[in-house]
Amino acid sequence: MKSAIIASTSTIHGSGYLDYLLDTLKQHYSGIEDIIFVPYARPSGISHDDYTAIAAKAFAKIDIKVVGLHEFNNPIEAIKKAKGIFTGGGNTFVLVNQLYKNKILEPLKDAIDNGTPYLGTSAGSNICGLTMNTTNDMPIVYPPSFKTLGIVPFNINPHYLDPIKGSTHMGETRETRIKEFHKFNTQPVIGIREGSWIEVKNKSITLRGLLDARIFTHDKPPYEIETNTSLAFLK
Amino acid sequence: MKSAIIASTSTIHGSGYLDYLLDTLKQHYSGIEDIIFVPYARPSGISHDDYTAIAAKAFAKIDIKVVGLHEFNNPIEAIKKAKGIFTGGGNTFVLVNQLYKNKILEPLKDAIDNGTPYLGTSAGSNICGLTMNTTNDMPIVYPPSFKTLGIVPFNINPHYLDPIKGSTHMGETRETRIKEFHKFNTQPVIGIREGSWIEVKNKSITLRGLLDARIFTHDKPPYEIETNTSLAFLK
Repeated sequence: MKSAIIASTSTIHGSGYLDYLLDTLKQHYSGIEDIIFVPYARPSGISHDDYTAIAAKAFAKIDIKVVGLHEFNNPIEAIKKAKGIFTGGGNTFVLVNQLYKNKILEPLKDAIDNGTPYLGTSAGSNICGLTMNTTNDMPIVYPPSFKTLGIVPFNINPHYLDPIKGSTHMGETRETRIKEFHKFNTQPVIGIREGSWIEVKNKSITLRGLLDARIFTHDKPPYEIETNTSLAFLK
Repeated sequence: MKSAIIASTSTIHGSGYLDYLLDTLKQHYSGIEDIIFVPYARPSGISHDDYTAIAAKAFAKIDIKVVGLHEFNNPIEAIKKAKGIFTGGGNTFVLVNQLYKNKILEPLKDAIDNGTPYLGTSAGSNICGLTMNTTNDMPIVYPPSFKTLGIVPFNINPHYLDPIKGSTHMGETRETRIKEFHKFNTQPVIGIREGSWIEVKNKSITLRGLLDARIFTHDKPPYEIETNTSLAFLK
């Protein structure tokens, strides 16, 4: 049974890495002793080893061992055999570029479709949408394509940020950016705020966490939906 | 003689479109009656016609006529024959995609190198750097390449934004993003704040406007430079 957690962020303000999700992850990876961590997004450009150590430290709290995908000679086989998978955040362009280079996208999609429990945070969540066209990241490398996994039939905007009242900055708000996206694309976008996640359980897709999320479609004004709402309508 | 103005923004908070630059533009385009406007970046997805009308209204104040590049059957010839050129802001991915599709990059670079006075704002400034890898924009379309004009031998980050003190948002600051860029690229980046511009006069490159700018290089910590400083050292 397909089972994925697609989280806005790894960390909420004032708490440690993955802390707010640990109870959920204990259930999500129940019975699993070790998972594979995809460290490709390299936040602040840290090394694959250093990033894997951060993930390992958090998962040790729920007695799960973490092995970095970069440690395998054959990462495709590693993904196929993984008991659980976690893709961490960082830069989505760097992540997607590396997934294409290592030919991991197809096996990763197959593994998730076949029921390997998956966790994505931030960039690791972005890749669960149809494309990475709604990432917030800076395009510091040029990936071969913006097409991503399509675990859900829409696009994701993690770290969704409401307009800052009274700001004098002339750069676009997040909402303006997503509206521009819809001048060129038709798939819906969900803006998930830090602390929210999308839970995929077989064919059901549900908003979880404490916060509302914002829905953007190409043909009507954006609107809010409450947590625990089914997202089955969104396609 | 090469003559370009590469501005952080078209508009500063509390004033009209291009207002803060009009005196400078009067000199920049001195003796020129009509310029070509490149409306490809389509801010908020507005049409080429609507965007050209906005530029035309501003330039009417200094008695310069504006014609949209989209109005020409042969845009390559139009760029070659232009007396002055202005590329407006919007989405850098949309702009660069359209420049590649219409094969405008090469003729545009030639025109600027040969002395056609150029103004870029925001996305229209981003393309004056070596690549568009340091844009702030959302990647809503996939351009054939991130390589841009290289009018200056470094990269540009327009609308440069200092970290917001006390923010609880976990998304990356602008500085973090540019630092990540330097894990994968070596060219310097200049972060120009809203109200600043880079003046290119033949071989001299100078920071102009009222504000300092921030310099990022791949091998040392970022630092500030004062307005009216030569940027000749930056390569």
